[in-house]
Amino acid sequence: MSRHYRKPDVSVDVVLLTLSQEGLMVALHERGNEPCRGSLALPGGYIHTNEDESLEDSVRRMLREKTTVEPRYVEQLQTFAGPDRDPRGWSVAISYVALVPMADLIEAEPAAFSFYPVDRLPELAFDHADQVDVAVQRVRNKSSYSTLPCWLLPEKFTLTQLQRTYEAVFGETVTRATFRSRLGIKVGDVRAGEAVDEAGVLIATDDYQLGNQRPARLFRVDQLGLFRRASW
Amino acid sequence: MSRHYRKPDVSVDVVLLTLSQEGLMVALHERGNEPCRGSLALPGGYIHTNEDESLEDSVRRMLREKTTVEPRYVEQLQTFAGPDRDPRGWSVAISYVALVPMADLIEAEPAAFSFYPVDRLPELAFDHADQVDVAVQRVRNKSSYSTLPCWLLPEKFTLTQLQRTYEAVFGETVTRATFRSRLGIKVGDVRAGEAVDEAGVLIATDDYQLGNQRPARLFRVDQLGLFRRASW
Repeated sequence: MSRHYRKPDVSVDVVLLTLSQEGLMVALHERGNEPCRGSLALPGGYIHTNEDESLEDSVRRMLREKTTVEPRYVEQLQTFAGPDRDPRGWSVAISYVALVPMADLIEAEPAAFSFYPVDRLPELAFDHADQVDVAVQRVRNKSSYSTLPCWLLPEKFTLTQLQRTYEAVFGETVTRATFRSRLGIKVGDVRAGEAVDEAGVLIATDDYQLGNQRPARLFRVDQLGLFRRASW
Repeated sequence: MSRHYRKPDVSVDVVLLTLSQEGLMVALHERGNEPCRGSLALPGGYIHTNEDESLEDSVRRMLREKTTVEPRYVEQLQTFAGPDRDPRGWSVAISYVALVPMADLIEAEPAAFSFYPVDRLPELAFDHADQVDVAVQRVRNKSSYSTLPCWLLPEKFTLTQLQRTYEAVFGETVTRATFRSRLGIKVGDVRAGEAVDEAGVLIATDDYQLGNQRPARLFRVDQLGLFRRASW
């Protein structure tokens, strides 16, 4: 059957999200080629069928071509397709969302990217604004019952940093007590290696963050943890 | 860049689920062509870039080629891709899940399909067993907090039919009281047009199912309704 129909073009696009003082930000670059030359767009490109072993391979290769950053969290989002989304013809874009701490990005010097707040997007090429919307919805939804926002933080973090991160993801400020109740965080001390929350996914480490105030315990997550109930 | 790489093949596959006395069933057909000729497989095929206006168009066209059934619920599941999933080379399969009541299927005389219980699958072609697994996981997960299983029922249904449907989806039998508590179904009579549940998504109709026992009220859902909390 394939010989009767022109194959669609297939690309992989990445909604790379990070966190700054301004909140949740998306990485965009200015397109150097037609179509949409000069427009802001998500990083993306065609699958290299001669070298990519999987779609996630394509994602990581494309990001490596633009920056040295290796996102710790990459998830398939949704496939966008149709005859009109690209002027070159019927096309398929397999969209991914990736989360990366801003500190990792700064270290990687991603000159190819500019970062824009997801809630105040400029005009984007193709259907990339739709892809960002779906990515942000997915991240907010999944963050409401899981440790997903931890992938926007360094590997070890304080509970205050964690709270700021959840607040930034949802664009909502809460009290310390509300935050702890939503995530099921227990009151009182925990020993290193023990969980600080009911679901057992936020693990205390031996390390502390030193600063002006009293040292703050650092925590970590092993993998994507789920809370017992919708928490946000 | 496309000129440097052979484009992958792109197909759309459908995990068409229905409900029988044996539980949740998936529609399979025997492949008439190589590769995997004679193997059981999901309905699917290449995108027709000359006529399909969207991926959902491709799904519905492919189902129409095999049966007259029009599923009321169609959702994109996940895109499966890689160099090894099809012996013909690098391929992309955009997988969909569709739900349809068995009564609609019987009416449509889908001679092209045989139905197999999702929990006791025979060997399938390509990565189709993975696609079924992901589809069933998605349906079970989404059914735990929504009216998704209603798309496996006729447009109007009794609460007992609804309970049997949730039980079949989850493969678990519960008491009438447990079922009603999980879905937040209120005790007592409701008027036609009113919701019988806390979330306001299960609407009473004017109609009753007549039978050996006392007439049972028929209910409907307008669209995919979400319950207030994870209910299963």
